[in-house]
Amino acid sequence: MSVKALIIAAGRGSRLKGLTKDEPKPLIKLLGLSLVERVILTAKRAGIDEFVMVIGYLGEKIREELGDGDRYGVKITYIENREWERGNGVSVLKAKEILNEEFVLLMADHLFDVEILHSLLKTRLEGDECVLVVDKRPPDYIDLREATKVKVRDDKIVDIGKRMKEYDAIDCGIFLCTQSIFKALDESIQDGDETLSGGINVLSRAGRVKAFEIKDNFWIDIDTKSDYNKAEKILCEKLIKPTDGPVSKFLNRPISIRISKLLVRTKIKPNTISILSFFIALLSALFFSLGDYLYIIIAGILSQLGSIVDGCDGEVARLKFQQSDYGAWFDAVLDRYADALIISGMAYGYWLLHSDIKIWIIGITALTGSFMNSYTAIKLDSILINNKNIPRIRFGRDIRLFLIMAGAVLNQIFYTIIIIGILTNAESIRRLYTLRNR
Amino acid sequence: MSVKALIIAAGRGSRLKGLTKDEPKPLIKLLGLSLVERVILTAKRAGIDEFVMVIGYLGEKIREELGDGDRYGVKITYIENREWERGNGVSVLKAKEILNEEFVLLMADHLFDVEILHSLLKTRLEGDECVLVVDKRPPDYIDLREATKVKVRDDKIVDIGKRMKEYDAIDCGIFLCTQSIFKALDESIQDGDETLSGGINVLSRAGRVKAFEIKDNFWIDIDTKSDYNKAEKILCEKLIKPTDGPVSKFLNRPISIRISKLLVRTKIKPNTISILSFFIALLSALFFSLGDYLYIIIAGILSQLGSIVDGCDGEVARLKFQQSDYGAWFDAVLDRYADALIISGMAYGYWLLHSDIKIWIIGITALTGSFMNSYTAIKLDSILINNKNIPRIRFGRDIRLFLIMAGAVLNQIFYTIIIIGILTNAESIRRLYTLRNR
Repeated sequence: MSVKALIIAAGRGSRLKGLTKDEPKPLIKLLGLSLVERVILTAKRAGIDEFVMVIGYLGEKIREELGDGDRYGVKITYIENREWERGNGVSVLKAKEILNEEFVLLMADHLFDVEILHSLLKTRLEGDECVLVVDKRPPDYIDLREATKVKVRDDKIVDIGKRMKEYDAIDCGIFLCTQSIFKALDESIQDGDETLSGGINVLSRAGRVKAFEIKDNFWIDIDTKSDYNKAEKILCEKLIKPTDGPVSKFLNRPISIRISKLLVRTKIKPNTISILSFFIALLSALFFSLGDYLYIIIAGILSQLGSIVDGCDGEVARLKFQQSDYGAWFDAVLDRYADALIISGMAYGYWLLHSDIKIWIIGITALTGSFMNSYTAIKLDSILINNKNIPRIRFGRDIRLFLIMAGAVLNQIFYTIIIIGILTNAESIRRLYTLRNR
Repeated sequence: MSVKALIIAAGRGSRLKGLTKDEPKPLIKLLGLSLVERVILTAKRAGIDEFVMVIGYLGEKIREELGDGDRYGVKITYIENREWERGNGVSVLKAKEILNEEFVLLMADHLFDVEILHSLLKTRLEGDECVLVVDKRPPDYIDLREATKVKVRDDKIVDIGKRMKEYDAIDCGIFLCTQSIFKALDESIQDGDETLSGGINVLSRAGRVKAFEIKDNFWIDIDTKSDYNKAEKILCEKLIKPTDGPVSKFLNRPISIRISKLLVRTKIKPNTISILSFFIALLSALFFSLGDYLYIIIAGILSQLGSIVDGCDGEVARLKFQQSDYGAWFDAVLDRYADALIISGMAYGYWLLHSDIKIWIIGITALTGSFMNSYTAIKLDSILINNKNIPRIRFGRDIRLFLIMAGAVLNQIFYTIIIIGILTNAESIRRLYTLRNR
């Protein structure tokens, strides 16, 4: 099933005036990508690769910026709507001749989670029905005065409009449509209502609009600077993973997200950041291997810095839709080598000063334990992938590198390695028990 | 969907006389499990946990042996057929009053791959249809003179019998049935044909028997000693994994399968074998750490022995239907520790004799490389799980331990560790390239 998407990118976005003087609203950059790029790339991740875009206000700029979509691995066809100052229903109607099958209808200024499209595309349409994505429990950042409201009865939309006082849900601006929408828009425009809601209303009166509940997924309509700030905040918050360890959550992420917010504005690729993080760890290992306290302090700080920067590759990848299996793997492999280098550097530096052969034995123990933690984490994930009942608590890399920094600052290399050796290997055994006793 | 299975275990198995004098054929042991246990455990893996078993010849022995099925985590109900010397259709008919829904019909002496049941259970039955599993390209070990043949037209069975000269496929003795089979058997038995084929023939004449192609899956009807030997051979051959490396394939497996054939007759659990293999590796590490050439030779041989025994846990688990996520993980974790111990032991023993600090650096490099190979193997698998186009060639544990044995026998610990360090780390990099260039 290859569904096309119709994106309405014709409006002026007058309430974002400051930002849209010389630039159409769809091209406003948010965390390194324009709003319309985010909509396209989200839809692409849901499997959509053909787009029809209705442009109007400063439409040429949009066409120039996005081109034929090649850069995004999709195909974009443009329709110009010179009457963009009329209602958005007029913009939708311009695509009437081009779209002959089921299509997804999206707004260039509405951001949303890809999961919504994933489920929406699985909906079976009966006859000439349309489906409207609605939010029954809109979060508090949705401006209810400006939102389009709907009444829902038995999964059907029965009324839609902005001025309703009693309503069941909010219109999220995401639709799965059949050609019936065009006929309905013709009718409502003749009746004087030029909004898309007008057309939907015609269909809903005939019982032909299904409501699709968004559940806990994220969506936002960016109309004001406050919406823009909120969207930025939420996209950043979503970067915190449920599997993040405590050091990552409370120390590394707050810093790495700040760095990532700068990095997304550049062309720096996630894999380049992985390499940078690896080189910071390599530098840390070199300083550790020199053995003197002053170098050890620098090495400890570098190791923690590497740990922080290590978060940025994934963050930038997710913010810019650049995630890849290869990237994730490349990062994981470099991290393991970085771990091995840092612990070896610590052991070598200590041995230089103290000529104590024990350091090699405990170094190998700590190295083995660190590897085992990373190893069992994937094993655990691949086994538990369909079993979300077991908590995935980790004694992970974030804690290890934090302990190394702390131990370095306190000049306790020997005991730091012993502690890491004990904790990592104990964690391996704990994970075995977890799996056995489930 | 919880489908029951009807197992026909009433016959005498006269052509296996030597083996069935005091014992009914379903209880003949094959690689540690009786034939009927294999049928039950195969069906259980396909999700079936309720069984109805028709017993006849020495039926009490079967009932005594299997009990209520608790031991296998299933429920078994028995029906006695005192007329077991009549055709097998009579045995099937005995279950008429007990089975009121769709059920799977199996023979206690037919072994088969679980994949067949998995797909068969997904078949949608229309009305009172039955489905018969057939083999269009029977392997040469199937005795065509004794086999039941079928003619197939457009996925329907149109004729069935033993004496047919022209036929399209062989009846594999696995059925998905509705109640219609009982009515058909009533009819065919009245007409003088007491075989199950007789009943199927009644249904097929009415166009109500679908053919289900077995494709490349394994099945065998065990009627003679030669069938028995063939089944044993094939079940053992199936233990060789497509991911097995060259040393595993040509040296370890041939030996470990021989050991496993003895082990399946005992009550030794797969996890116990994993622990045994770990202790062999631990012993190898201890001998390596002593440093002298004689000890090193012993250590090298032990390391290879550990590698061979390491194959047995999985083989016994698969032969006895004892596979578990925990078992696989337990084995993997112990293997990683065993690897770390052996390389550490080698480094320590060398250092004792030569006091050369370089051995620790190259030891850590080899250890890191070994870990990386195991680490990237799971990462690779979890990423490639749905992409079978990329070959999963491995520089794996089998080769590493073989190199260690060879190096030990040649008294070249230093160079062995260097070679392992180079090869394992080169393999990590090669895998990164593989994934990047796909």
